[in-house]
Amino acid sequence: MDKKQRCKTGIEELDKELNGGIPSGSTVVVAGSSGVGKTTLCMQFLVNGVKMGEKGVFFSATENVNMLKKFQGTYDFFDEKLIQSNQVSLIDLWSISDRLGLNPENYSYDEANILFEVIRDITKELGAKRLVIDSITSLCFRLKTREMIRDFIFKLGSSLTVLNCTTILTSEVPPMVFQFSQNDIEEFIADGIIFLGDIARKGDLLRTFQVVKMRGTAHSRTKFVLNMSSERGIELVPMLKKTL
Amino acid sequence: MDKKQRCKTGIEELDKELNGGIPSGSTVVVAGSSGVGKTTLCMQFLVNGVKMGEKGVFFSATENVNMLKKFQGTYDFFDEKLIQSNQVSLIDLWSISDRLGLNPENYSYDEANILFEVIRDITKELGAKRLVIDSITSLCFRLKTREMIRDFIFKLGSSLTVLNCTTILTSEVPPMVFQFSQNDIEEFIADGIIFLGDIARKGDLLRTFQVVKMRGTAHSRTKFVLNMSSERGIELVPMLKKTL
Amino acid sequence: MDKKQRCKTGIEELDKELNGGIPSGSTVVVAGSSGVGKTTLCMQFLVNGVKMGEKGVFFSATENVNMLKKFQGTYDFFDEKLIQSNQVSLIDLWSISDRLGLNPENYSYDEANILFEVIRDITKELGAKRLVIDSITSLCFRLKTREMIRDFIFKLGSSLTVLNCTTILTSEVPPMVFQFSQNDIEEFIADGIIFLGDIARKGDLLRTFQVVKMRGTAHSRTKFVLNMSSERGIELVPMLKKTL
Amino acid sequence: MDKKQRCKTGIEELDKELNGGIPSGSTVVVAGSSGVGKTTLCMQFLVNGVKMGEKGVFFSATENVNMLKKFQGTYDFFDEKLIQSNQVSLIDLWSISDRLGLNPENYSYDEANILFEVIRDITKELGAKRLVIDSITSLCFRLKTREMIRDFIFKLGSSLTVLNCTTILTSEVPPMVFQFSQNDIEEFIADGIIFLGDIARKGDLLRTFQVVKMRGTAHSRTKFVLNMSSERGIELVPMLKKTL
Amino acid sequence: MDKKQRCKTGIEELDKELNGGIPSGSTVVVAGSSGVGKTTLCMQFLVNGVKMGEKGVFFSATENVNMLKKFQGTYDFFDEKLIQSNQVSLIDLWSISDRLGLNPENYSYDEANILFEVIRDITKELGAKRLVIDSITSLCFRLKTREMIRDFIFKLGSSLTVLNCTTILTSEVPPMVFQFSQNDIEEFIADGIIFLGDIARKGDLLRTFQVVKMRGTAHSRTKFVLNMSSERGIELVPMLKKTL
Amino acid sequence: MDKKQRCKTGIEELDKELNGGIPSGSTVVVAGSSGVGKTTLCMQFLVNGVKMGEKGVFFSATENVNMLKKFQGTYDFFDEKLIQSNQVSLIDLWSISDRLGLNPENYSYDEANILFEVIRDITKELGAKRLVIDSITSLCFRLKTREMIRDFIFKLGSSLTVLNCTTILTSEVPPMVFQFSQNDIEEFIADGIIFLGDIARKGDLLRTFQVVKMRGTAHSRTKFVLNMSSERGIELVPMLKKTL
Repeated sequence: MDKKQRCKTGIEELDKELNGGIPSGSTVVVAGSSGVGKTTLCMQFLVNGVKMGEKGVFFSATENVNMLKKFQGTYDFFDEKLIQSNQVSLIDLWSISDRLGLNPENYSYDEANILFEVIRDITKELGAKRLVIDSITSLCFRLKTREMIRDFIFKLGSSLTVLNCTTILTSEVPPMVFQFSQNDIEEFIADGIIFLGDIARKGDLLRTFQVVKMRGTAHSRTKFVLNMSSERGIELVPMLKKTL
Repeated sequence: MDKKQRCKTGIEELDKELNGGIPSGSTVVVAGSSGVGKTTLCMQFLVNGVKMGEKGVFFSATENVNMLKKFQGTYDFFDEKLIQSNQVSLIDLWSISDRLGLNPENYSYDEANILFEVIRDITKELGAKRLVIDSITSLCFRLKTREMIRDFIFKLGSSLTVLNCTTILTSEVPPMVFQFSQNDIEEFIADGIIFLGDIARKGDLLRTFQVVKMRGTAHSRTKFVLNMSSERGIELVPMLKKTL
Repeated sequence: MDKKQRCKTGIEELDKELNGGIPSGSTVVVAGSSGVGKTTLCMQFLVNGVKMGEKGVFFSATENVNMLKKFQGTYDFFDEKLIQSNQVSLIDLWSISDRLGLNPENYSYDEANILFEVIRDITKELGAKRLVIDSITSLCFRLKTREMIRDFIFKLGSSLTVLNCTTILTSEVPPMVFQFSQNDIEEFIADGIIFLGDIARKGDLLRTFQVVKMRGTAHSRTKFVLNMSSERGIELVPMLKKTL
Repeated sequence: MDKKQRCKTGIEELDKELNGGIPSGSTVVVAGSSGVGKTTLCMQFLVNGVKMGEKGVFFSATENVNMLKKFQGTYDFFDEKLIQSNQVSLIDLWSISDRLGLNPENYSYDEANILFEVIRDITKELGAKRLVIDSITSLCFRLKTREMIRDFIFKLGSSLTVLNCTTILTSEVPPMVFQFSQNDIEEFIADGIIFLGDIARKGDLLRTFQVVKMRGTAHSRTKFVLNMSSERGIELVPMLKKTL
Repeated sequence: MDKKQRCKTGIEELDKELNGGIPSGSTVVVAGSSGVGKTTLCMQFLVNGVKMGEKGVFFSATENVNMLKKFQGTYDFFDEKLIQSNQVSLIDLWSISDRLGLNPENYSYDEANILFEVIRDITKELGAKRLVIDSITSLCFRLKTREMIRDFIFKLGSSLTVLNCTTILTSEVPPMVFQFSQNDIEEFIADGIIFLGDIARKGDLLRTFQVVKMRGTAHSRTKFVLNMSSERGIELVPMLKKTL
Repeated sequence: MDKKQRCKTGIEELDKELNGGIPSGSTVVVAGSSGVGKTTLCMQFLVNGVKMGEKGVFFSATENVNMLKKFQGTYDFFDEKLIQSNQVSLIDLWSISDRLGLNPENYSYDEANILFEVIRDITKELGAKRLVIDSITSLCFRLKTREMIRDFIFKLGSSLTVLNCTTILTSEVPPMVFQFSQNDIEEFIADGIIFLGDIARKGDLLRTFQVVKMRGTAHSRTKFVLNMSSERGIELVPMLKKTL
């Protein structure tokens, strides 16, 4: 697989670890509890894409789009012009769902298919090569069976692959557990898994980063410390042995 | 984000930790088990707001409003005149629900929307810039599905943001677990999470305080000891290394 | 809050810890597994009340009232004349429920309200200032939803507060866990929580006592050893450091 | 409570621990996993009763009555003449249930009452002062709600108390847990709890014995090793400190 | 109980431990996770029976009968002639169930009774004195309630006792837990429990063997290492102290 | 069992451990969490089969067949010509299911039988001697009861045995647990179990490999480290003692 087939995340240590980036067209689950940096990681992934000429689309299902813009605006990497110029599109997933007239409480099998098709079509129309759903957990609450969850993610992944669009699905898990989703489903369909964790250290709570799975590329599964700052966004630093 | 955009809690160590306060318009979950100080933290947040010229409203769903006044009256920071002058409004959530004729056992999707709108309208009418729901857990018991919980908090947060009202939702969790809500939902919608915990120490049970997540601001995630006294209400003190 | 507003338990170490006693009109959950002394603590609380001129009422939902009298009669503090003279009334909760014609398997919302009103009216008529329900867990088995449990305890507490009657609800939890109720509900409504636990020590099983929460008063959360003897009933002794 | 009011078990260390025996008319739960000696303890309790002039009745719900006789016959304390002379009656609980025409899968509220009355009437007619149900867990499988279980045991206990009949209910729990019943119900209704446990020691699995609760009598909660042998049946020996 | 009343297993250490063998007519649960040797232990038990002149019958519910023959054929103790001469009968339990026209998804109460009667009648007709159901867990999946499971095993055991047929029921449990069945039911009905476990040792996974319960005989509860080899089948060796 | 009856996996250490390979016609569960190498192990098993003249078929239920080809193409052992020449057939299980008109949400008992027959017929027609279903977990989501899961795998295994086709079923389990399937069913039907695990080591996450069960062959249960590289695919290396 040559570099053309890699989707560079722009997060240096991660790209290095993945031999250039995520295999293009993959679906990657980014799992972690509240406050570990899932949303910021996704936004940085999209913004970095623009620098490489790739449009992005962010479907928000947990955060108001205006608040999202405001909060992400506190990071230097974020530039609201990218939104205005449609380089990165922020879309409220539930507004779409409402406009489609879907049942706000839970989806029938057919409604799930309609939503999947609309996401695919929007992506196609925008010409986006990077897509984020934040969070897939939130969306899955409206899918009533394990089979529907599996089916939805499977179809979504398959169709985005055809568009050569690389996808990140954030997955919400309880704090302090090593788990990739609430129903142990999403991660088995996904091509990759990145786990963001917490480690309690001397009264502090460090964030960690680990690639658990990535189909189509050799990769280590080393644990990094994830730092977040306004100036540099997310950065990965090798974990000091003594911290382990 | 400049200071105007911060909602100063008046709890010194917390404001320092958050670079001035909670980003205005945020929804923050304060999670903890019984007896860790959730209600008192909220009341102090509202009272301190009045000192800065911001009105507050407290929706109680677990404690009789008269008892609440009486018990909070044992803290020096609390001044019943604030209630009488409507600087801080104490409202019994279930009385509202009853007056609206909502089903006392569980809400339909429409009833949930009615309640949300009434909370929003009251807040607007009062001109409150700080709102507390104590507890959101209690309210969620009447919302029958995970999706309804998510939807309710999402809409509430979005509309209060528009009013630039900063919101605290208390979340009840079992003792001695590091968990942010009973259904692992609220925290993912919220913009911030503050966790109040317990540590058993030499036959005593210390209260702890930790900011786990706060969108829109850099912050440490250091653990503090939370002290409560009639004279000074809630105070945060850095944790001694040996206590960890 | 002056002494008039305190309900002295007559258990010396506890009153000291609470600066005079439980704030009058409070609802306190006494949680613990089988055999830790919940029933005896409650009876001693009522008997001590009589000495201070306060009548008491004990609603039993787990133990036959005659057996209760017989077993409590083995403690020196217990005096059957208190029962005969109606200073302490022992009432079988299920007999009342049966006489009211309530469904013996589970209560409708309306039936729960009827029971609550009868408990309140009996208390009023007796002029009781101390009330015990042993156990609230048992009663809650007939309330089918978490919301009904919450609602029942909330209303009960509110109305007893109006009567200035201090209430103890015993809560049954499994052995060897630090938990306050079977559904994690009662403790969040209650104004106070006292936890009775077990500690295995050298082949023995010590009973422990700890105030976890008490609204309206400063209090430590120190752990005591709880001793029970025929001669002195329940006594609290500070825990030796080495036992921790 | 004088000695007349004690039901001597004839197991020396236990009677000593209980100041003479179980308070007469009590209902005692004997909890433990498979193979810890619950059935043998019960049989020995009944046989010892005969020596003191008290008749006994054993309702078996887990073991065929013939097998029960055969297996207990391997203990020297057991004498089949006691059965033949009706000093100890062995009764198959399910045969009774079948003869009464009760639903073999689960009981309605009324059917549960019929069974309870029959057990009471048999006991009365036999003039039994000691009763065993082995196991109550098994019986509870036919009672569909927690409330029905509570109600059944409550009524059973109350009516046997009136007959001054001391009752043992065996309770089946999973191995290696400190738990008193499968639903955490029976033990709160019972007047006493005896826990039979296991301790893994150097590749062996010791049986242990501990009185956790006994209403109406002071008692220690010390742990004993329980030995079983054909010659002496069940014996309790103080636990060596080093084994703890 | 003299030797005639013992069913010698032919596994030397086990017979020694049980003073000659399993009490005849008993029902013994052999519990363990996948791969611990349950099936092989059962087959060896049947084959050893033939050597002592006792016919056996093996009802398979998890393994195709032809595969069973083929796989067991890799052990030297197994001789296909025993099958051909009907000394040991291998029977596919589901084929019987299908031929009886029973519902393949779950049994009604009546269907469960039909199956039980057929098993009993086959055993009687064959004159088998040793019976294996591998696994009872598998069969229990078709019994929808805990009560039906209990009832089925109780009746089966009772009727096989009458035929003086000794029965082994294998029970499937998850790996690395000390548990005797998936529903905590079978072991309380059974007369005996043998637990086959795993111990991780230096990167290997040893199999262990322990008699937990055996009604009608004194026995130790010592843990053995279970070795399996083509040449000698299952062998028990005392556990080295250091391995514990 | 001679070598003709062995299905050589081509993974050197594994074949050595199994005395030549998996007994032909067996059904083997390969269990592990996301990212441990289940899919790659299966593909390598099929490709190695071709070298020994055995055709293979891979039913994918979690990964798009095109992505599967692309991702497996990054391993040197994989040769797309094997696909083109039908030596290894990659089949999308859900496409088949859709074409058969089966209910996409859950299967009736009859639909499950139809699917099983189609899998068997395809295998027969292709003349495949090695079959993979990746994953059986995914397929089981459409089987609504434990009994249906058991029945499906039992029939599938039996019929493939008749075709002398060796089968691998991958089983998805949560990370960091020693468990063989989500419902504790598949492993008891299967003839063999291979467990792929994770061990956290100095900030890295090693993959491990262990044969837990294999009917019809002696085998050790030693734990190996599983290494994956583009050049050599999966390799097993003995675990260093210190890593244990």
